[in-house]
Amino acid sequence: MLVNGKPGNLISIRDRGLLYGDGVFRTLRATQGKAQHWLLHYQKLRHDCTALGIACPDVGLLSAELNDLLARHPNGVVKLIVTRGEGMRGYAPPDCAETTHLWDISPLPDYPADWAIHGIKARLCQLRLSQQPRLAGIKHLNRLENVLAAAEWNDAQLPDSGIAEGLLLDIDGNAIEGTRSNLFLVSQGELITPDLSRSGVAGVQRDRVITWSTQHNMPLQIRDVGLDEVLHADELFVVNSIIGLWPVRELEQRRWIGFPVAMQIRQAWAEEPAS
Amino acid sequence: MLVNGKPGNLISIRDRGLLYGDGVFRTLRATQGKAQHWLLHYQKLRHDCTALGIACPDVGLLSAELNDLLARHPNGVVKLIVTRGEGMRGYAPPDCAETTHLWDISPLPDYPADWAIHGIKARLCQLRLSQQPRLAGIKHLNRLENVLAAAEWNDAQLPDSGIAEGLLLDIDGNAIEGTRSNLFLVSQGELITPDLSRSGVAGVQRDRVITWSTQHNMPLQIRDVGLDEVLHADELFVVNSIIGLWPVRELEQRRWIGFPVAMQIRQAWAEEPAS
Repeated sequence: MLVNGKPGNLISIRDRGLLYGDGVFRTLRATQGKAQHWLLHYQKLRHDCTALGIACPDVGLLSAELNDLLARHPNGVVKLIVTRGEGMRGYAPPDCAETTHLWDISPLPDYPADWAIHGIKARLCQLRLSQQPRLAGIKHLNRLENVLAAAEWNDAQLPDSGIAEGLLLDIDGNAIEGTRSNLFLVSQGELITPDLSRSGVAGVQRDRVITWSTQHNMPLQIRDVGLDEVLHADELFVVNSIIGLWPVRELEQRRWIGFPVAMQIRQAWAEEPAS
Repeated sequence: MLVNGKPGNLISIRDRGLLYGDGVFRTLRATQGKAQHWLLHYQKLRHDCTALGIACPDVGLLSAELNDLLARHPNGVVKLIVTRGEGMRGYAPPDCAETTHLWDISPLPDYPADWAIHGIKARLCQLRLSQQPRLAGIKHLNRLENVLAAAEWNDAQLPDSGIAEGLLLDIDGNAIEGTRSNLFLVSQGELITPDLSRSGVAGVQRDRVITWSTQHNMPLQIRDVGLDEVLHADELFVVNSIIGLWPVRELEQRRWIGFPVAMQIRQAWAEEPAS
């Protein structure tokens, strides 16, 4: 673990990341000493920092630190956090804050291989996401909605329900995302993914599916999607940087068997040169 | 500064308070070794912890730590944070998390005395608060909306505008609160304060005004309030535990002179025995 470039696992209690969630983060998958799609993640990080007025650390600096980290821990879930740093008391961002940046690495999760092939069981979360255009799309540190949503079924005191992800709607009933993933529908030969201009986090793997659709001339719409449309889709799948792509085989009363488009994307990704 | 009862100013980078803003806080005013309204703050803290499913530290433990802190630093702004602690990677709250609690103390701000008597200049914030009934009222660590709102005018690079607080509306145009205070209107002999069931933080001083209104047989309504009603109020004032009560003398094109109800409450509070 690295805090501002130095080995360590502690941060000041006056850091605005703790006080206000005033920061952004990325979660990357590292295998064999390589962090997948690092530059795409860096672009998102810089975009998100800019949106909040946080000075993003230089890509050269972060890349060097990441390489150091991976030399010692070649495989794992890499987390990068950038906060606005410390400042005077109060919500207003300080003028000359030195941002804090830190790295952490955890073991890769051991998901059943079957989930990627035959799909996951998903649930519909009761929590409805709020709408905040100023924060939508950004992977910021204000994640209590995700915590409350995941708490709905991720209770180790309950018998294992086999549920792998929860679908989140916003307060208007639009399907937005999974608790930790982006959502895609396939309907009548088209890909559809929710508009994230009011809620949700726009992840790197979502961009990669959008890129794939362009390269393969598959029409893709980014727009509002209701639950009814989700349940009537020909295919449904979720993506993030740790799980990759999981088809959904079960949501509410609906069951799906066979995921030709999802499998085509998985196949294309598997054949991509590492980047 | 105390972290889990021990002197220190550092916290783990794996603490969920940093990772997700998964925690709550209180801000108290300490003078002459006494933290004002500590027990009211503790009740709020416990309420907020319960709402998020966080185990709240015992009042005896926290009171003892607070006394230790105040013995060394008798005057200042005391901040208390309780987080869900550390856990496995992922949003779902861990089963048996040990919560983190920490104390910090900063110098009392030096606001112009005139603001309490002749009122403050307030601005209308452009940012509109989102609506999330599951989090409304709670003083949690997801405070990016407050940060963005305060950044609208709290820019030390700008010439001092004299603005002391910003009024926040929600996405439906309801007046909710100040960026760091609760809002009251006086209209036709009645007190009105916004309903905080969808947005905002319900502070201790808001409760104290409500209590005062009951004790003094002044009608008080808690309900939705539009901007137009705010601008047509006979009096307007904001409260929090650090500033106490500030009348508003200027907001948008409206000017107010004389704040009889606000002054009555200030007077009553000044005469209260310390608690």
